[in-house]
Amino acid sequence: MSLLVVGSVAIDNVETPQERRDDLLGGSATHFSYAASFFTPVRLVGVVGEDWPAQHTELLQSRGVDTAGLQQRAGGKTFRWTGRYLPNMNDRETLDVQLNVFGDFDPIVPAAFQDARFVFLANGVPAVQAKVLAQAPHRDIVVADTMDLWINEHRPDLDALLQQLDGLVLNDGEAKLLTGQQNLVAAAEAVLDLGPRFVIVKKGEHGSMYFGRDEAGRLDSSVLPAFPTRDVVDPTGAGDSFAGGFMGYLTEQGKIDGATLRTAMAYGTVVASYNVEGFGLERMTSVTRAAIDERLAQYRKMLAF
Amino acid sequence: MSLLVVGSVAIDNVETPQERRDDLLGGSATHFSYAASFFTPVRLVGVVGEDWPAQHTELLQSRGVDTAGLQQRAGGKTFRWTGRYLPNMNDRETLDVQLNVFGDFDPIVPAAFQDARFVFLANGVPAVQAKVLAQAPHRDIVVADTMDLWINEHRPDLDALLQQLDGLVLNDGEAKLLTGQQNLVAAAEAVLDLGPRFVIVKKGEHGSMYFGRDEAGRLDSSVLPAFPTRDVVDPTGAGDSFAGGFMGYLTEQGKIDGATLRTAMAYGTVVASYNVEGFGLERMTSVTRAAIDERLAQYRKMLAF
Repeated sequence: MSLLVVGSVAIDNVETPQERRDDLLGGSATHFSYAASFFTPVRLVGVVGEDWPAQHTELLQSRGVDTAGLQQRAGGKTFRWTGRYLPNMNDRETLDVQLNVFGDFDPIVPAAFQDARFVFLANGVPAVQAKVLAQAPHRDIVVADTMDLWINEHRPDLDALLQQLDGLVLNDGEAKLLTGQQNLVAAAEAVLDLGPRFVIVKKGEHGSMYFGRDEAGRLDSSVLPAFPTRDVVDPTGAGDSFAGGFMGYLTEQGKIDGATLRTAMAYGTVVASYNVEGFGLERMTSVTRAAIDERLAQYRKMLAF
Repeated sequence: MSLLVVGSVAIDNVETPQERRDDLLGGSATHFSYAASFFTPVRLVGVVGEDWPAQHTELLQSRGVDTAGLQQRAGGKTFRWTGRYLPNMNDRETLDVQLNVFGDFDPIVPAAFQDARFVFLANGVPAVQAKVLAQAPHRDIVVADTMDLWINEHRPDLDALLQQLDGLVLNDGEAKLLTGQQNLVAAAEAVLDLGPRFVIVKKGEHGSMYFGRDEAGRLDSSVLPAFPTRDVVDPTGAGDSFAGGFMGYLTEQGKIDGATLRTAMAYGTVVASYNVEGFGLERMTSVTRAAIDERLAQYRKMLAF
């Protein structure tokens, strides 16, 4: 079974208290694809400009990511993001954003991708996310990410999209903003009333929470801490690689029952913990499925009592 | 086996976005004692003033807490704290502190308490915490809490105390302050170099982490999220009731191997989740060991994958 992802593909400049690195392979769909590729074949839809280095595409292809849906716009420039992490390595400032070709991204799902059953709509304009669904008629499971900008400024489109989702992935601040609830449990439950069958609330270095309903309609929840790591080099893309590990595992399993969703969250947690150990995708290039499974076993031990 | 605790006993005024409540039974040793009482007999050493209501002592006694070490100072006033919680119910402002009789607290461990094998030194001046150890010659396991004030202003005394501890319990900001490490894993490991055999880092609504060394000297760690609760009424004392559940269970078991420490953390987490569901100790008065065990089972299920 394969997984379709649509979202941003970017070139990042990242500054940390230790180091500054320019021209990193970035973007939500990129981190997602790479993370998911350890579990399932991934089909990527995105857009880049003329300045996009061919070796970035090759890196994704080396993991089996199908880049047939990666449009390259002649005369355009790739989406660029520059950010700086504070000493706590959790909070960051965005120093510069140039949307470039991503600003009027019109996703085109190649014919060969249209049989996709698992679909992930990485963070983007809700109306654009919705366009993808019209091009994935065989979709079974659709999960989306969103952000404060769309919650504040594209609410009607977002509300319409929520009706079409199986799951929503968002961070804690966004869950509170979307629902007006300050308590995260109350916020997560309120998200379920907006349409999705389940919601994953990402809390950065503090882990994630899952809320859904079981077959009998009863509230079902799970809560997992982040995998504690000493070596936080660059947190960029942690949330996207979490989502990639999560969706990758769900697609591999071909189902979304409660037990599978919980294990998927754990895999997402572990994959994200590798992602932050290097700039961009650098650490991920030396990760294997065996290493992921080994850290998953270590993580399970850490949670046991 | 019984547990000796020494620390603050207070009268709190608490303001939340919903309500203000005055004259609540508060203090670190109080929340600790009540929480620990579900697991083991507790012996409390503290000081109060003339204004201390007898029914507060009776409430503790009703849980089997031995209050023979609770000095009542004639002509003095009880330690008073007034605080206000922000709408997120995690951050708070201290509006007023009157140390009163706690300001020159000289702990006296009654003769009948001196055979204590498990000792908890709730947050206090390190030199005063050390005075207790001299009065507990049969101590096997000593765990202490501390805070930023002592780290900044009583560092030599604190360093000396750390040499005498089996375990240190402190919050994330304090762990960073104590060690100069911004990464929590690095900070926790650095705490172990200061003396304690294990450290518990409390992260408030984000749970807790444990770092210690196994019999072979290898680093052993555990990480647990907080129990997610909708009904956060008053977070005051959450950390102390966490410590109470933790130490209570250790004392009940009579050992501190890795498996017991992990289960103790889980019990601490669950007891703290009840504590925050009411003002002061109000919610705790309707809690039973059976309810704690039931929530523990629910919590275990939430963490399983």
